[in-house]
Amino acid sequence: MDRVYNFSPGPAVLPLSVLKQAQADLLSLPGIGISPLEISHRSDWFEGVLAETTSNLRKLLQLPDNYSVLYMQGGARLQFSMIPMNLLRGTGGTADYIVTGTWGAKALEEAGREGQAHVAYNGKSHNYSRLPQPSELQLSPGAAYVHFTSNETIQGVQFQQEPEVGDAPLVCDASSDFLCRPLPMSKYGLIYACAQKNLGPAGVTLVIIRNDLLERTPADLHSMLRYTEYSENNSLANTPPVFACYVVMLVTRWLLEHGGLTKMEERNRAKAALLYQVLDEYEDFYQGHADPACRSTMNVTFRLPSDELTKRFVKEAAAQGLRELKGHRSVGGIRASIYNAMPLDGVEKLREFMLEFAAVAKV
Amino acid sequence: MDRVYNFSPGPAVLPLSVLKQAQADLLSLPGIGISPLEISHRSDWFEGVLAETTSNLRKLLQLPDNYSVLYMQGGARLQFSMIPMNLLRGTGGTADYIVTGTWGAKALEEAGREGQAHVAYNGKSHNYSRLPQPSELQLSPGAAYVHFTSNETIQGVQFQQEPEVGDAPLVCDASSDFLCRPLPMSKYGLIYACAQKNLGPAGVTLVIIRNDLLERTPADLHSMLRYTEYSENNSLANTPPVFACYVVMLVTRWLLEHGGLTKMEERNRAKAALLYQVLDEYEDFYQGHADPACRSTMNVTFRLPSDELTKRFVKEAAAQGLRELKGHRSVGGIRASIYNAMPLDGVEKLREFMLEFAAVAKV
Repeated sequence: MDRVYNFSPGPAVLPLSVLKQAQADLLSLPGIGISPLEISHRSDWFEGVLAETTSNLRKLLQLPDNYSVLYMQGGARLQFSMIPMNLLRGTGGTADYIVTGTWGAKALEEAGREGQAHVAYNGKSHNYSRLPQPSELQLSPGAAYVHFTSNETIQGVQFQQEPEVGDAPLVCDASSDFLCRPLPMSKYGLIYACAQKNLGPAGVTLVIIRNDLLERTPADLHSMLRYTEYSENNSLANTPPVFACYVVMLVTRWLLEHGGLTKMEERNRAKAALLYQVLDEYEDFYQGHADPACRSTMNVTFRLPSDELTKRFVKEAAAQGLRELKGHRSVGGIRASIYNAMPLDGVEKLREFMLEFAAVAKV
Repeated sequence: MDRVYNFSPGPAVLPLSVLKQAQADLLSLPGIGISPLEISHRSDWFEGVLAETTSNLRKLLQLPDNYSVLYMQGGARLQFSMIPMNLLRGTGGTADYIVTGTWGAKALEEAGREGQAHVAYNGKSHNYSRLPQPSELQLSPGAAYVHFTSNETIQGVQFQQEPEVGDAPLVCDASSDFLCRPLPMSKYGLIYACAQKNLGPAGVTLVIIRNDLLERTPADLHSMLRYTEYSENNSLANTPPVFACYVVMLVTRWLLEHGGLTKMEERNRAKAALLYQVLDEYEDFYQGHADPACRSTMNVTFRLPSDELTKRFVKEAAAQGLRELKGHRSVGGIRASIYNAMPLDGVEKLREFMLEFAAVAKV
């Protein structure tokens, strides 16, 4: 085994101990004799997997009892549609969207198919480099819900706390920073995250919903697009992605073993600071994309003075085992994704590389 | 490692060589240094996975060029909705449904939400124990499409050849028998299968669609529910279930290495015959559910003289390492699922057990 440091924005690095456990179980679960890739979703083993994952999440998040944890497929992008289908369709109301990056804009687009989708804020004019001040939010009175994206993966901007939205249910796409820090869950109506950044492999999507919102699901909605189909059947109405759920369980165990979300936030802040310090010290060479007040602890985005230097940076970093650093084409430059499972060593090695690269390139 | 024989209807047994390859790669893909659970869907490696899988499927099925292979999430049940959304919505036409079991009935239910869904045949009155004669099909003139289920997993009835439906596009749920035999693909408009029976692990769904049908996708449909979103983006519009796709690729390799679908059909017929012979020889003890003319080579369903004997059968078989034999509650009795990857040994061992059990129980 010769592993590199994988700075991919998602699918992304997983804890090595989780991979080792999955590898050990892969041919045959102990005492069962069936692979987790083959075992029935109706088995006691898999019911145990879902039960433990939910229980671990409840502990990690101190989740109040009036919330349900649902396991789905289709990624965050299917949630962009399911949220307005379940919470807006037929209400005659308006859903507010706080658009602070690429993913929020895509969520807004789908909502418009189901009813009035109102842009409460749009950061496109400054290429999504900062987040709204409270006074910049234009909220609709009595909104069906207010949607925001806690961390924009492409731009690397992250809300430091929840936007204040009054009584409307707060709906959050937390795909790229879920479980990176403790959350005041009672502020949320619904929070969702695809797994492939901070939770596990691609293929499973987590939705945590306050139970009263389940009552909004319209009667005419297709079965697999109804939240109630999942909540009423313990996410077993159809076959869930068994193996992906099992890996998510292993990740939640790893989080508990490593001190939970408070500890995770500390680690994440320390890791991110190592890189942002370089941006601050070498600001004429590494130009950060995000306004310092809303820098993400998950995705560190910056540009170099030229495309040529960017290409050299990516190539030379790769040669040192620092991979997947190329930024998204809409922002350019470099993006280092340093989710929970990125070890401190990886970030330290990247920091050293950045310092050396700047020193050599500036000569 | 101490593996049992897993007769689960799905998720189901996979080839041992496939599991071993996945296990070997699990911490780090050779030459890449990243786990297949962590690697980006935008990587060259994953583009290679999709390209090879599609190419293998084209070879296995002798698929004409005017068909697209799409990789999706959500299982066959999401297809129950996506098919009428894409092919019926807004046409003003009628979709015909040939209902020969539990899954066909569920598909019909979702279609009714999108337009006229006409029951061309319904086998419920005989508890779905047989398939329609051509004269029993009540097809609509100019139907938008005709849907059937090639193999009903719960009842164990399997079409021996495609129903004759004239010019209407034939749409097939092949979830539980896809790749069990060669198929005359040009007869199909669309064929789909969730992976977790004959293709791979739960979490990925394959859709093969004739390209002219892609033109029917309505403009107002949500992005992730549009077939065109997948066909136009090489199934990469959002993050596909990378690991599940990789296992499907390994399964298609295994099929090619083992003689392709003609050989697979031979093996499957031989395996199924071993069990059906027991049903025929001991017909006063083992009562087959399916009419002999439409017996499934994938799911062998039968009842014993009493619930007590059924329970004993399941328990004693399990003690011998023959697992997951309990039938679905709607049919009762026993179901032995013997997909492509179930080795001949497993079926032979089950046959021996059935003979012994009948001999002892009948005394």
